[in-house]
Amino acid sequence: MLLQRRVPLAKSVARILRQRLRTVYADGGRLPSEPDIAAELGVSRGTVRQALTILEREGAVIRRQGSGTFVNPYFLRIQARVETAYEFTDLIRQSGYEAGIRLISVARETPPTDIAAALGDAAGGEALMVTKLFTADDQPAILCTDVVPVDLIRQPYTDAELAAPIFQFLDRRCFQTIAHVLADILPQVAGDDLGPLLDVPPDSPLLRFDEVGFNSLNKPVLFSRVYYRDQYIRFSVLRKKM
Amino acid sequence: MLLQRRVPLAKSVARILRQRLRTVYADGGRLPSEPDIAAELGVSRGTVRQALTILEREGAVIRRQGSGTFVNPYFLRIQARVETAYEFTDLIRQSGYEAGIRLISVARETPPTDIAAALGDAAGGEALMVTKLFTADDQPAILCTDVVPVDLIRQPYTDAELAAPIFQFLDRRCFQTIAHVLADILPQVAGDDLGPLLDVPPDSPLLRFDEVGFNSLNKPVLFSRVYYRDQYIRFSVLRKKM
Repeated sequence: MLLQRRVPLAKSVARILRQRLRTVYADGGRLPSEPDIAAELGVSRGTVRQALTILEREGAVIRRQGSGTFVNPYFLRIQARVETAYEFTDLIRQSGYEAGIRLISVARETPPTDIAAALGDAAGGEALMVTKLFTADDQPAILCTDVVPVDLIRQPYTDAELAAPIFQFLDRRCFQTIAHVLADILPQVAGDDLGPLLDVPPDSPLLRFDEVGFNSLNKPVLFSRVYYRDQYIRFSVLRKKM
Repeated sequence: MLLQRRVPLAKSVARILRQRLRTVYADGGRLPSEPDIAAELGVSRGTVRQALTILEREGAVIRRQGSGTFVNPYFLRIQARVETAYEFTDLIRQSGYEAGIRLISVARETPPTDIAAALGDAAGGEALMVTKLFTADDQPAILCTDVVPVDLIRQPYTDAELAAPIFQFLDRRCFQTIAHVLADILPQVAGDDLGPLLDVPPDSPLLRFDEVGFNSLNKPVLFSRVYYRDQYIRFSVLRKKM
């Protein structure tokens, strides 16, 4: 029982320390000793050690035998990790900008063939298609179209509530929870369609994510196509050899 | 001791089962029972269970209480995981093509400012810059420039050996081992420089990875800029909510 409780606690401690890496600890680049952290946060040394192991695996800190734990300066440059499905407003804020949302369009129509295929059986017919623009300091930064099969919608809704994260809509109106998201990462040229929407010349490169969200039974319940301006959002990944 | 040995064994079993997901198990979509797998591979049921847990975490299989373990059909569509630092020839082969390598250029020069900055102190002076083209069925698929600070080179080498993976060069000639790679993922338009090299029109989108390789002391020892044609190489990532 005690052991089971310690894992979430170590995660909480890791979260606290992770925030401090960019703030209080960033300056000297060195973390206090394990006993000092344990005493300050009122947790055991074992929990602190577990938390530091979590941060070490992420590449956030470096532990050197005998000399202590250090902030990984390269980690501080990471704005967004590609393995994490952030809410877009959080992503924009943590990239250093004021975040805004504009609802561009809401429609019920038959989705294009490639999107219907990605959604499998679930998209036999119409889908709810919601396009939103996310701004960084009032400049277009992310354009997202979410596609939800109409068959899944169980409750009435208003268009206004579709400005909120789609996970909320899926939860409240479809009784669906996304367990994981499988994303294909693609390069794209803005062209005449996306250029004006994202306020970039038509020959600008964009990063595109084609994402399928699965529920806990591994059924696809959401398709999202997302375009990022890399001027505002920069994705990084820690790659490991096979 | 027994417990410690079981982890690598479970990994080996996971590797065997992972290969079968795309071959023998792909057809019916269902894996044999745990006792059957255990008996066939001559390992304990516990090891099989650990291996299945590894595959379940990757999203490769789905376990349903009482009804068995199933291949995740969406996993089969993944060609390349963005979290894995593949060798390029492996990446091309597993994407379904014959792989080839052409050494385009080898030079010793002062790297551009942005690359020198990414390499930190290590790149005070000149760097060895090696550009290679990787082909898929004889078509250009990946263009890679590796940058190694000359200061790190400890042994004489011939240009011919630079056609091999750069990890080999770092190991044998610099006594450096890459512990992990931090990659920024960017979209890029081919333009007049890259278009002819990759045999695409200048307005084609490319996926670009700017990668820094760190040794176990977290010192940057390698910079690589890699361009992928998404027609041949498609990266996917399993994203999880924070």
